[in-house]
Amino acid sequence: MKYHVDGELVPAAEATVSVEDRGFQYGDAVFETMRAYGGSIFEWEAHAERLANSCDALGIDHGCTDTELRERVRETLAANSLADAYVKLSISRGVQGGKLTPQSDADPTVVVIVDELPRGGVDGVDVWDEPAVVQTTKTRRVPDSAIPADAKTHNYLNGILARRELVEGADEALLRDADGRVAEGATSNVFFVGDDGLHTPSLGGPVLPGITRSVVIELAESAEIPIHEGRYTPDDVRNAEEAFLTNTTWELRPIETLDGIAVGGGPVTDLLSRLFDERVERRHYGGDTA
Amino acid sequence: MKYHVDGELVPAAEATVSVEDRGFQYGDAVFETMRAYGGSIFEWEAHAERLANSCDALGIDHGCTDTELRERVRETLAANSLADAYVKLSISRGVQGGKLTPQSDADPTVVVIVDELPRGGVDGVDVWDEPAVVQTTKTRRVPDSAIPADAKTHNYLNGILARRELVEGADEALLRDADGRVAEGATSNVFFVGDDGLHTPSLGGPVLPGITRSVVIELAESAEIPIHEGRYTPDDVRNAEEAFLTNTTWELRPIETLDGIAVGGGPVTDLLSRLFDERVERRHYGGDTA
Repeated sequence: MKYHVDGELVPAAEATVSVEDRGFQYGDAVFETMRAYGGSIFEWEAHAERLANSCDALGIDHGCTDTELRERVRETLAANSLADAYVKLSISRGVQGGKLTPQSDADPTVVVIVDELPRGGVDGVDVWDEPAVVQTTKTRRVPDSAIPADAKTHNYLNGILARRELVEGADEALLRDADGRVAEGATSNVFFVGDDGLHTPSLGGPVLPGITRSVVIELAESAEIPIHEGRYTPDDVRNAEEAFLTNTTWELRPIETLDGIAVGGGPVTDLLSRLFDERVERRHYGGDTA
Repeated sequence: MKYHVDGELVPAAEATVSVEDRGFQYGDAVFETMRAYGGSIFEWEAHAERLANSCDALGIDHGCTDTELRERVRETLAANSLADAYVKLSISRGVQGGKLTPQSDADPTVVVIVDELPRGGVDGVDVWDEPAVVQTTKTRRVPDSAIPADAKTHNYLNGILARRELVEGADEALLRDADGRVAEGATSNVFFVGDDGLHTPSLGGPVLPGITRSVVIELAESAEIPIHEGRYTPDDVRNAEEAFLTNTTWELRPIETLDGIAVGGGPVTDLLSRLFDERVERRHYGGDTA
């Protein structure tokens, strides 16, 4: 595999950053996890916009145009002959002398990592084998007042600590905010279905504005499923008719159990998954699914 | 300069970690900032103990003995002919496949970075030019429920975001906890002096158990200065007779102003600074300061 580091394609084994890079020293970096379907990036514009927001939040001026970033991703995919792939684009603030306070002369480091994934779309294969077994953790989501949740950064210990709490068999953590309301999974947004439609925690809480999250909301609207963004307790999810997680690699993934209580997917989850697959098929594989 | 990376001494320009190292990907790493005075590390045992606590909190099993870690630090100082130095010892969880959940087969990466510092002790030179100009920030300290404050980790964006708020001329951020109580500086602990003795935020809040902090408390006790660990507002510091910051490189550094309000050092700060210097002189330069 070849990765893109600081403007160059290099073999994965030689893809490194300085130990003085602030990405390593402080997690002082932002990233996007993307999926390539049939050779092109799903929702590039949305990812590029969120990346720009993350850079703004941290004051990282990477100096690359949208076209340049996109070209580095394209080159990395091409160098590895990948059409269906996981793509992680990271931008760290780069190397800078001893001070914690960011200096304007730091030279950001742009890194693109890729890996093969199965085909998506209508004939695609899910990257997950089973629905998610989810556990509410003692670890609470970092509040916006400490690090804004809409910045997607390399400070990921909060999610790692939550994942470390999981009992054998569980594979995603459900993090609550300081008030005990459901925020998000360690690497996913949460949705559940009630009598009155689809629910998901509002972005007013410490919730990442997931790209898949926003696509699902759009698809629900197009299917005239009422969508509610609010503040919820874990019991709201445990008692739901259906529940699922979203992220870029998982797409939609049903929640089999939350804290041992069976929830599962169902007709709404299935419908939204199908609409998602059709959208991917139409846009990335040229399929006529109308 | 030479650094120690993964068991080898390498020129600084070649001191790198994989872009897949979890230290870079997630800030999934712990560290200690230490000072060498006259060739030996100040308070090695305390740093080693805190490093072990940080590793425990994250579940990083680096497999090195205390002697091995100390030897890597010693080798790095020797390779650079440094006796008085800044030393940063980092241990990241290392490289591991795509999953966020830590796997037990990850191979931790140990990194030692050094830099020259002036002599310490009675004849030493402060690393800071001026007392600190401190500003209370909107950015709040990450709560213990999200990431425990007694783990010293590479997730440092909270402090970076606080530092980014500073107005021209200010050089340290004062972070409050979620309740508005004083927690700590971005890279320092806070002390202030009132009628009734010395005060510092208690470790019950999201406060790093600073090594210099604990040495100062010990010195205050030895000098029979009453010491109080409590919960304080920024006004308590603004209205104090004296206030100072502590960290390993700064040692004790008076707070000139907090939010534009003059506080400054004074007799207690001076006494504790002198006692600190004498301790360093006695233990590291063989000086007789009794």
